Amino acid sequence: MATDDPRPAGRTDESHPSLLEERIDGESVFQGKLLKVYRDRVRAPDGHEQTFEYTLHPGAAVVIPMLDDGRLVLERQWRYPLNRSFLEFPAGKLNPGEDPLEAVRRELAEETGYRAAEWAKLGEMHPVIAYSTEVIHLFMAKGMVAGESAREKGECLELVVMSPEALFDAIYSGEVTDSKTLSCAVWLDRILRGVWQPVWKTLPL
Amino acid sequence: MATDDPRPAGRTDESHPSLLEERIDGESVFQGKLLKVYRDRVRAPDGHEQTFEYTLHPGAAVVIPMLDDGRLVLERQWRYPLNRSFLEFPAGKLNPGEDPLEAVRRELAEETGYRAAEWAKLGEMHPVIAYSTEVIHLFMAKGMVAGESAREKGECLELVVMSPEALFDAIYSGEVTDSKTLSCAVWLDRILRGVWQPVWKTLPL
Repeated sequence: MATDDPRPAGRTDESHPSLLEERIDGESVFQGKLLKVYRDRVRAPDGHEQTFEYTLHPGAAVVIPMLDDGRLVLERQWRYPLNRSFLEFPAGKLNPGEDPLEAVRRELAEETGYRAAEWAKLGEMHPVIAYSTEVIHLFMAKGMVAGESAREKGECLELVVMSPEALFDAIYSGEVTDSKTLSCAVWLDRILRGVWQPVWKTLPL
Repeated sequence: MATDDPRPAGRTDESHPSLLEERIDGESVFQGKLLKVYRDRVRAPDGHEQTFEYTLHPGAAVVIPMLDDGRLVLERQWRYPLNRSFLEFPAGKLNPGEDPLEAVRRELAEETGYRAAEWAKLGEMHPVIAYSTEVIHLFMAKGMVAGESAREKGECLELVVMSPEALFDAIYSGEVTDSKTLSCAVWLDRILRGVWQPVWKTLPL
């Protein structure tokens, strides 16, 4: 089944036209609940024809939640594909059309019970540019207030509160390897040293 | 078609048995050239039954290549799923059974022409724990010697040499968002400040 181009609009990248890979045609090869897989025929800049397989993703958001005493709230959660648990910052997929900040506030409250008064957008991250359209929006939160979580059925996790130095030790030792958590750590390290300044805004709890 | 469990052996995680999601059964739903998609029925720790879709991946390796003058070698490459180019550290998939260090030395030479005398393993990163088994091995290389690249057909890229500070500026501005490059940046920042010490070994060029 031939399809119209399902990919994001992309970027003009007018300074790099010599790299552009041109879509010839494509088809949907698997439409699952999470994964929507396409296979496209593509012409490379050198004229070589290849196929690319990739999945569409609605995007996600992650947050570095910092308590008033400077410690961080992380989650330990089973990650089925890798058959083990991971230590990671709270995150979740965007609902269709959902604003990333709204999504991450919702996920933080649902998964941890915490609400936060101060929020800063840090940046964006693409976890897997070779085979997914996923983008993850990175946030930091302060002014945290504990409350009741409202996890979905099957969403089982443990909250782990740790200092930034304990987090960096856990990265160094190989205990923390999740890409969104590592990406947040770039920002955390430089924010704590005062090299980068987030722009905070206050929101109603 | 029911299949045996195709996932990695995982980790015992004996300290977190309460999080374990148990496989009931599963099937292959798409076997492509790159993506090998499975859909499994899974029982969560709270007894709730759900399905997970995920793809198998052979693993990959990425390197921070540092020239004698301290500048870094990156690549600008078109990433078809996102319909734009990205600035990223050199990386590539492992061939079946290939040692990650051998794979990344091969990829660095093929893609950039550079060979390096000194290598350090930094850590590992999981780009997309929600729907792929991929693990990326992180390395750093010094003692770089330029040479001829040997790119495959269709592998079109531009080399970009930049200082570490220019890289961090590009992360802060949102120009660099690739997860493996951001994960390397956590290490790079702390190595350059002397907080983390890589263990170097010298290899024949």
